[in-house]
Amino acid sequence: MELLNALNWRYATKKMNGNKVDQTIMDKILEAARLAPTSSGLQPYEVIVITNPELKIKIQQIAMGQTQIVDCSHLLVFAAWDNYTKERIHNRFDFTLNERGLPLDTMDDYRNRLIGLYTPREAEENFIHTARQAYIGFGMAIAAAAELKVDATPMEGFDNAALDELLDLKEKGLRSVTLLPIGYRDAENDWLVNQKKVRVALKDFVTELN
Amino acid sequence: MELLNALNWRYATKKMNGNKVDQTIMDKILEAARLAPTSSGLQPYEVIVITNPELKIKIQQIAMGQTQIVDCSHLLVFAAWDNYTKERIHNRFDFTLNERGLPLDTMDDYRNRLIGLYTPREAEENFIHTARQAYIGFGMAIAAAAELKVDATPMEGFDNAALDELLDLKEKGLRSVTLLPIGYRDAENDWLVNQKKVRVALKDFVTELN
Repeated sequence: MELLNALNWRYATKKMNGNKVDQTIMDKILEAARLAPTSSGLQPYEVIVITNPELKIKIQQIAMGQTQIVDCSHLLVFAAWDNYTKERIHNRFDFTLNERGLPLDTMDDYRNRLIGLYTPREAEENFIHTARQAYIGFGMAIAAAAELKVDATPMEGFDNAALDELLDLKEKGLRSVTLLPIGYRDAENDWLVNQKKVRVALKDFVTELN
Repeated sequence: MELLNALNWRYATKKMNGNKVDQTIMDKILEAARLAPTSSGLQPYEVIVITNPELKIKIQQIAMGQTQIVDCSHLLVFAAWDNYTKERIHNRFDFTLNERGLPLDTMDDYRNRLIGLYTPREAEENFIHTARQAYIGFGMAIAAAAELKVDATPMEGFDNAALDELLDLKEKGLRSVTLLPIGYRDAENDWLVNQKKVRVALKDFVTELN
């Protein structure tokens, strides 16, 4: 099974070698994220793809100096909506109904229920929800890279506010959630590459209620 | 590419037919979740697998009556740690180092940094973080099911507190995050099965900074 093979193959690459990843491969990784399911199909996040060397250096400085940020080929930033708004929800529903060739009032009950539920809430509570959705796409991108035998390092260790400022995310109504450097391992200089992959035993992970 | 094929094939199944999913298939879906990466490898969540019919009915009643909960074969509940504690972090580090045959003090700097960062925080802030990790495994289980041509319906619409109570999750230090009914579609009675899959256009999802 491809997905299990890919998940067993991958690891959180600690040292990358600077080689470029082909655009055709990047397109597939981004497509996996784009196809990821999200709550009510709202897709409340975006991906910023960074190859600019100066920008990568600036990001490294606010990400605990992690070298993969500059040694990767493409740095992905997953950034979630800072809030749900009526306009954003209407846009997504209208888009979906147009794509399906359905009248725009087809899902009004559902649409209005979401607007009634989300828009009175604090922005922070809504961001907790949008960020969770971003993690699904983040996971799909990780899985896609591994299936394509490309390395990736899931990262949370950076200064979110500083990155939002650097990338002008506030103006776009976004907040950074995770980083994902994509590239190729420098196996000779990576302490983790030959370490055993460790996961909690199935008995400590799964409980069956029959 | 298997993952893209799987993501294009899947949809949030609205009506399931009650057929059983083989245990060998369930094992692979759960293995995909178990292999999912998590922050610092802490794997701060578990999966409860429910086949008990009476329990499924009780859960349906606190999940907006969604029929997939009773018509699925296996209902997965993703439940994240309600907090990070010293004990939990020590357990995971000790386990990993034992599995790798390394001295238990090998990663003391990293271990102590995490303990210093996480354990003084409010439980709620830590749960925001553990729940995010659960979404990665949730996504991997969704992808695995699709690759195996098994249907699944990602769900957030349920009464989390009531489910935590019903499953005694508080006693286990867990809080429910998502539901994932796994089963087979009842295509004749599913309004969504023949609708076009809609995703935001790539230009509205990806920004390149070169």
